[in-house]
Amino acid sequence: MRMEKDSIGEKSLGDSVVYGIQTARAKENFNLNYKNTDQSLIAAIVQIKKAAAHTYQTLGIGKPGVYEAIEQCCDLILAGGYEDAFITSALQGGAGTSTNMNVNEVLANLALVKLGHQYGEYQYVHPLDDVNRGQSTNDVYPTALRIAAIEKLRVLSDKCSQLQQTFQQKENAFDHIQKLGRTELMDALPITLGQEFGAYAQAISRDRWRLYKVEERLRQVNLGGTAVGAGNNADRKYRFGILEILRGYTGMGLSPAEYPMDITQNNDVFVEVSGLMKSLAVNLMKISNDIRLMSSGPKGGFGEITLKALQMGSTIMPGKVNPVIPEMVMQVAMKVIANDSAITMAASHGEFELNAFMPLIADSLLESLQLLIDAVESFRTKCVEHILPDEERCRQLLEASYAFATAYTVEYGYDLISEAMKESNGDPLKLKEILEELE
Amino acid sequence: MRMEKDSIGEKSLGDSVVYGIQTARAKENFNLNYKNTDQSLIAAIVQIKKAAAHTYQTLGIGKPGVYEAIEQCCDLILAGGYEDAFITSALQGGAGTSTNMNVNEVLANLALVKLGHQYGEYQYVHPLDDVNRGQSTNDVYPTALRIAAIEKLRVLSDKCSQLQQTFQQKENAFDHIQKLGRTELMDALPITLGQEFGAYAQAISRDRWRLYKVEERLRQVNLGGTAVGAGNNADRKYRFGILEILRGYTGMGLSPAEYPMDITQNNDVFVEVSGLMKSLAVNLMKISNDIRLMSSGPKGGFGEITLKALQMGSTIMPGKVNPVIPEMVMQVAMKVIANDSAITMAASHGEFELNAFMPLIADSLLESLQLLIDAVESFRTKCVEHILPDEERCRQLLEASYAFATAYTVEYGYDLISEAMKESNGDPLKLKEILEELE
Amino acid sequence: MRMEKDSIGEKSLGDSVVYGIQTARAKENFNLNYKNTDQSLIAAIVQIKKAAAHTYQTLGIGKPGVYEAIEQCCDLILAGGYEDAFITSALQGGAGTSTNMNVNEVLANLALVKLGHQYGEYQYVHPLDDVNRGQSTNDVYPTALRIAAIEKLRVLSDKCSQLQQTFQQKENAFDHIQKLGRTELMDALPITLGQEFGAYAQAISRDRWRLYKVEERLRQVNLGGTAVGAGNNADRKYRFGILEILRGYTGMGLSPAEYPMDITQNNDVFVEVSGLMKSLAVNLMKISNDIRLMSSGPKGGFGEITLKALQMGSTIMPGKVNPVIPEMVMQVAMKVIANDSAITMAASHGEFELNAFMPLIADSLLESLQLLIDAVESFRTKCVEHILPDEERCRQLLEASYAFATAYTVEYGYDLISEAMKESNGDPLKLKEILEELE
Amino acid sequence: MRMEKDSIGEKSLGDSVVYGIQTARAKENFNLNYKNTDQSLIAAIVQIKKAAAHTYQTLGIGKPGVYEAIEQCCDLILAGGYEDAFITSALQGGAGTSTNMNVNEVLANLALVKLGHQYGEYQYVHPLDDVNRGQSTNDVYPTALRIAAIEKLRVLSDKCSQLQQTFQQKENAFDHIQKLGRTELMDALPITLGQEFGAYAQAISRDRWRLYKVEERLRQVNLGGTAVGAGNNADRKYRFGILEILRGYTGMGLSPAEYPMDITQNNDVFVEVSGLMKSLAVNLMKISNDIRLMSSGPKGGFGEITLKALQMGSTIMPGKVNPVIPEMVMQVAMKVIANDSAITMAASHGEFELNAFMPLIADSLLESLQLLIDAVESFRTKCVEHILPDEERCRQLLEASYAFATAYTVEYGYDLISEAMKESNGDPLKLKEILEELE
Repeated sequence: MRMEKDSIGEKSLGDSVVYGIQTARAKENFNLNYKNTDQSLIAAIVQIKKAAAHTYQTLGIGKPGVYEAIEQCCDLILAGGYEDAFITSALQGGAGTSTNMNVNEVLANLALVKLGHQYGEYQYVHPLDDVNRGQSTNDVYPTALRIAAIEKLRVLSDKCSQLQQTFQQKENAFDHIQKLGRTELMDALPITLGQEFGAYAQAISRDRWRLYKVEERLRQVNLGGTAVGAGNNADRKYRFGILEILRGYTGMGLSPAEYPMDITQNNDVFVEVSGLMKSLAVNLMKISNDIRLMSSGPKGGFGEITLKALQMGSTIMPGKVNPVIPEMVMQVAMKVIANDSAITMAASHGEFELNAFMPLIADSLLESLQLLIDAVESFRTKCVEHILPDEERCRQLLEASYAFATAYTVEYGYDLISEAMKESNGDPLKLKEILEELE
Repeated sequence: MRMEKDSIGEKSLGDSVVYGIQTARAKENFNLNYKNTDQSLIAAIVQIKKAAAHTYQTLGIGKPGVYEAIEQCCDLILAGGYEDAFITSALQGGAGTSTNMNVNEVLANLALVKLGHQYGEYQYVHPLDDVNRGQSTNDVYPTALRIAAIEKLRVLSDKCSQLQQTFQQKENAFDHIQKLGRTELMDALPITLGQEFGAYAQAISRDRWRLYKVEERLRQVNLGGTAVGAGNNADRKYRFGILEILRGYTGMGLSPAEYPMDITQNNDVFVEVSGLMKSLAVNLMKISNDIRLMSSGPKGGFGEITLKALQMGSTIMPGKVNPVIPEMVMQVAMKVIANDSAITMAASHGEFELNAFMPLIADSLLESLQLLIDAVESFRTKCVEHILPDEERCRQLLEASYAFATAYTVEYGYDLISEAMKESNGDPLKLKEILEELE
Repeated sequence: MRMEKDSIGEKSLGDSVVYGIQTARAKENFNLNYKNTDQSLIAAIVQIKKAAAHTYQTLGIGKPGVYEAIEQCCDLILAGGYEDAFITSALQGGAGTSTNMNVNEVLANLALVKLGHQYGEYQYVHPLDDVNRGQSTNDVYPTALRIAAIEKLRVLSDKCSQLQQTFQQKENAFDHIQKLGRTELMDALPITLGQEFGAYAQAISRDRWRLYKVEERLRQVNLGGTAVGAGNNADRKYRFGILEILRGYTGMGLSPAEYPMDITQNNDVFVEVSGLMKSLAVNLMKISNDIRLMSSGPKGGFGEITLKALQMGSTIMPGKVNPVIPEMVMQVAMKVIANDSAITMAASHGEFELNAFMPLIADSLLESLQLLIDAVESFRTKCVEHILPDEERCRQLLEASYAFATAYTVEYGYDLISEAMKESNGDPLKLKEILEELE
Repeated sequence: MRMEKDSIGEKSLGDSVVYGIQTARAKENFNLNYKNTDQSLIAAIVQIKKAAAHTYQTLGIGKPGVYEAIEQCCDLILAGGYEDAFITSALQGGAGTSTNMNVNEVLANLALVKLGHQYGEYQYVHPLDDVNRGQSTNDVYPTALRIAAIEKLRVLSDKCSQLQQTFQQKENAFDHIQKLGRTELMDALPITLGQEFGAYAQAISRDRWRLYKVEERLRQVNLGGTAVGAGNNADRKYRFGILEILRGYTGMGLSPAEYPMDITQNNDVFVEVSGLMKSLAVNLMKISNDIRLMSSGPKGGFGEITLKALQMGSTIMPGKVNPVIPEMVMQVAMKVIANDSAITMAASHGEFELNAFMPLIADSLLESLQLLIDAVESFRTKCVEHILPDEERCRQLLEASYAFATAYTVEYGYDLISEAMKESNGDPLKLKEILEELE
């Protein structure tokens, strides 16, 4: 048991507890049955702390050995195994201060031990004066969120690319299968099954491109701007040095915001990114729904394609197979749309030099990105790749319909063909006869 | 041309312009290409002004003849024909002050003429000191919104009741038609077409009840509370008198809020009402979508029912008939859901003693109510009433399916029936044979 | 290692794995980095299984000892300690089938062991034929969701009641503190600090009532309706018996839906409940925001009240104290509003006899309920209870303002007072002089 | 009175009615108290019809004189004065068919008269066979929506540019005014008033850029793809010719979609555009709210800036001036966010080869664009341009605060400064003394 204190008072912490008093307070204060701060965000903060520690070593700033120790501890955390030390709720007041402080305290304590001291002997390595030197939550947290988001966006863009390719394979494979095209769910014109999958490929290709391109908006960071973007308490050389180091660590073309006060207080970029993710969600909804409809039946529905059976479809009806992956994808899409609404509200509520609601933005954005990554992957590998056409059914429905008749309007006019249809009374063979007589 | 002035300066108004300087300023200030304040809200404000004028007459307050004149002018406006005098944008800053002022100025000027004066001679009838006496926008506007909303809610509840009855008629008419029940769009169990319409009737009956019951939440009004709910500048006798008069005019059981400051600043009741309207929207979406699916085809879809042809379905494909009414109803439902989001945001943004964003709440709520009234009416009279079943198709799809097999699991167990199905290879007749052998 | 098989194929499971093949398939199929199905929903399903087992015992149905064993195993699970056995993702396709199957399989295996058999020897206790007898996911899952929701609604209603009381205590305590009332953030009229907290109490009291009353909508359940609400494969006596048993277990007045097909396919009731929770969220947003504004400063803001310091406010600015609890509450409120949007979309997407997207409804609804419970509790105990007024500051702001002047318009008219204000040039003492001269 | 007929039956139309039977049916069918289809969309359709007529003339297709006449009538309509002829509801079923048909019928009848015939003599000029030749609603309507949206996006981007400049002027003008920076509404660090307006300029500049760049996504059109994107019934030469003509008319770099079937059925591009408009809305919310807060008071608020008085602020409190323009801007922003939700739902509901809900997308998108154009213009000209600083007040608040103390932590450490603050007990002068003693 050790005691830590701050301006509010004292608090006892178990001997093995690697975080400190501020983290313990946050745990108490934000006492929600909800998930903890995303590990991808923690990792990005640790990368920033490592870049800072490295920069200070280069500049010869700091007590001897302290920044070497901190940097080594950053690597320890990044290597995995310390996840349990990061315990702040994903939803928290204070604009992320508790999450930043959690990282500061864990790093300070790990570094203390490395230097031969005990947890809590902050006179040797201080969570704020040393680990957080030249930083504020208000520049560290938004920068970390950008890094974490870029990382996931790259994966998502790749997953979209793979899905697009799978749709294109289906486009080619189903190229020769004539079927009924439908508008407003009603029989329209002949198309091929391949064309439908080709259209899906196009839509997803747009998503891939959008998600790939938007990265450049996220690369502008306010790191070095500290509390309000004006750079208070951040050494000039540190400010220039850290970004170069961080670019190396992350492999991302991070650049200093032209006007760091802007980035510190305005979160429209996350609304933009989320809006583009919503476009992907909308495409996934549309395509999943089409696939559900086309595979509906097997006898009482459209029945033009068959999905792979992945699990028992009912606890009461044997033999039932449900389109469970498209259903899951649609729910993920709805969740992403809902999260976009949370991001929008949070971003619109910034006041003055900061947005206090960034934790909700971070939580919703990173959750949506990960859900999309997983859903797009499952959609491709568990559903789309295994789709089989029912060519016979496609042919039957097409032949039973009037889809062929539209072509005749060019020569005979809309009204005449309309009347011929009426006369044929729903029988395509009879309509063909009437139309042939016209010729 | 006449000049009017206020503390900001002077403004010239055409001789025939019945509103005054504040209305003219509002027109300039809220210069949006958007619709004007809803006439139902204007009418409700005029009713309140009339009740106030009547109350003051009863109490013997006011300059001789002025309140008689105002009351008569209220009746003039309520009789129709003065719509063009109310020109403030539906979206406006100032929490509705401009709309209230528009009514005050028009009434003052009409009363002036009635008393033998000219427009603008406010020393005889003053828009504020006389027409608005004992009132503030902050009690008049929310009270008027409640009256306008109750009026529309009653109509909507009736429309739901009629729709429910029509569904019940279809339930009875389609009672004998066996068809395939579907879960997750897949063949499930035998049901009747009547049962489906019966379920729709139940859902709409819940909506009817909810919309009917919520009126009681709206009946508590803050009229008499004036600017912040504390009743500043409102005569005690007037405060008690006006509500009784207004109850008579409106036929609504309006009652004074227990705590008028609460009602003046908190708008959760409109969020509640809008949330219930959203429940109706969700039911309309679900039912309309079912009807679109059931009527899809005619050859390449489900084809279990037929909708009445209302208009040409395509400018290029002759003979096409689309489910245009369900499509319209679904768009109205989506619009209502979107408006709910506007109401929620506006209501959450109140500060201190008032919510400045009430005009957006009023606009969205009244628009949604009217759209639902019209859509439910059209749905019933142009779509549901005319639905015809395709009994033959219902029978075919049912017979082609395995829907009958579930019943056998009670005796033979889930696994055995599962295997029998697999063995029968999609042929229901073969499955029947196998199952009969079991017996 | 044991093998289990279904109609799709075989799957090996570790010896100690208490769930079965369908759960394992679901784990693979819905492979999202997302939380598992809520334990409150699992518990409610187990209660239903227990009620069924008890009913069958009463009716003398089933193999000897099997339903006794199942009932005992339900109690085991309800006592806690088996949480790790329930591993299905909260977002899943199949309308909840996997979650129901997870419970069926765990119960079957636990009962098998209790009866001296091994995991997987389903010929003795079958997950479907025995545990799930007379049931379908489509009646079990929605019924369980209602039970879980009612349980949380009761807690939430109580928490609201406590918050309301705390506001009323503050109302009384601050009764004598005169302060400036504000509309549209601008100086308006004198009120008391007590009145502001009184208005908050009123708003929350409406929420408490709404959440309490809506329980009755949730009490109608479709249990016994099985797959499509028509009661296929459910014994008549079982259907009547189970609800009475379940009422006893839950202490909730559950009643059979008049028309179980309706409840099976229509989810408007959850939209209604979520809409009411959104009303609470809106009130929490408004009140939290007021408290943030009133406590802003300490020097450069409104500064009328002080919040308790709970943690260090900044990693760079010493001495800073932030309104972290209101900030957390606002984020919870935004999250609840976003979840309402997910619920609305999911509910609007039902087709025919079922809504495949119920898992998203369940996840969003239960998450929102729990977040509100926790946030309301934290708001009360960590923020509202500790609010201290700055009486001196309240007095100063009031005296510096023109709030007193409105009262004079009754006697002197609006225009004259307007002019007097202009003349006094922002100095309340000078205005008082001018006004006194009028008298 | 003339009679027109279609496959459904006959309908009488007044002699002076320039539209035809399909428009009349649409008027009856979509009988909503709602606004009509936006005139900007009508105009874009007319431009397409004109381009088609011109193309056919060039290709020598069509009856003699007919396409000349149609082209002239397009110019007539574009010159204004025929607005009353376009009467279809903005919300309609049929994916826009009624709006396209309204244009077809009006053009046919105007051309008939020009050629010496009567309204309704469609054997000479047919709404479908002639005016709509080679077209379908499904390519005309989405192309027209893109043209109308691009037109408004250009205006909006310009308006943002002007607003950005005005913010920059304020940045320069307020450059020298030291004030208190605030995070989470609490006193933080010294900044300048100019820096705040500089940050607003940056945010709006991002919006301007986004809205400018997204035009390129909208330039890909499916014109020529007709009903399902496959180009049925459209002459090859016409398909290539019309786009070049249309590029000339519109001055927009329209290009044929690589895969027209995709564009015909997928509407993610509108979700993308709306998402970017939402980013602007979020920035406008944040900035407007800041301005409301900074101008709050005049005595009981922040009071750092003064807005121009535009109208009387209250009907009961003389002298009150409200931030009515920021309030209007915030309501517009909320409306835009709500419309984005409608667009998202509508776009996610496409099925197969078409999205039936495009009218809701069009209505919401064009409404939001126009509202943003008007609101940004009003915000600039009626609010931002006239903002005056209260330098004295800015200085007072800064000097009363502890904002200067953070700088000392670099040298003395966070904990020491924290303690000094505590010791100084809220008195900045005393704190300065203590800190000076340290040096």
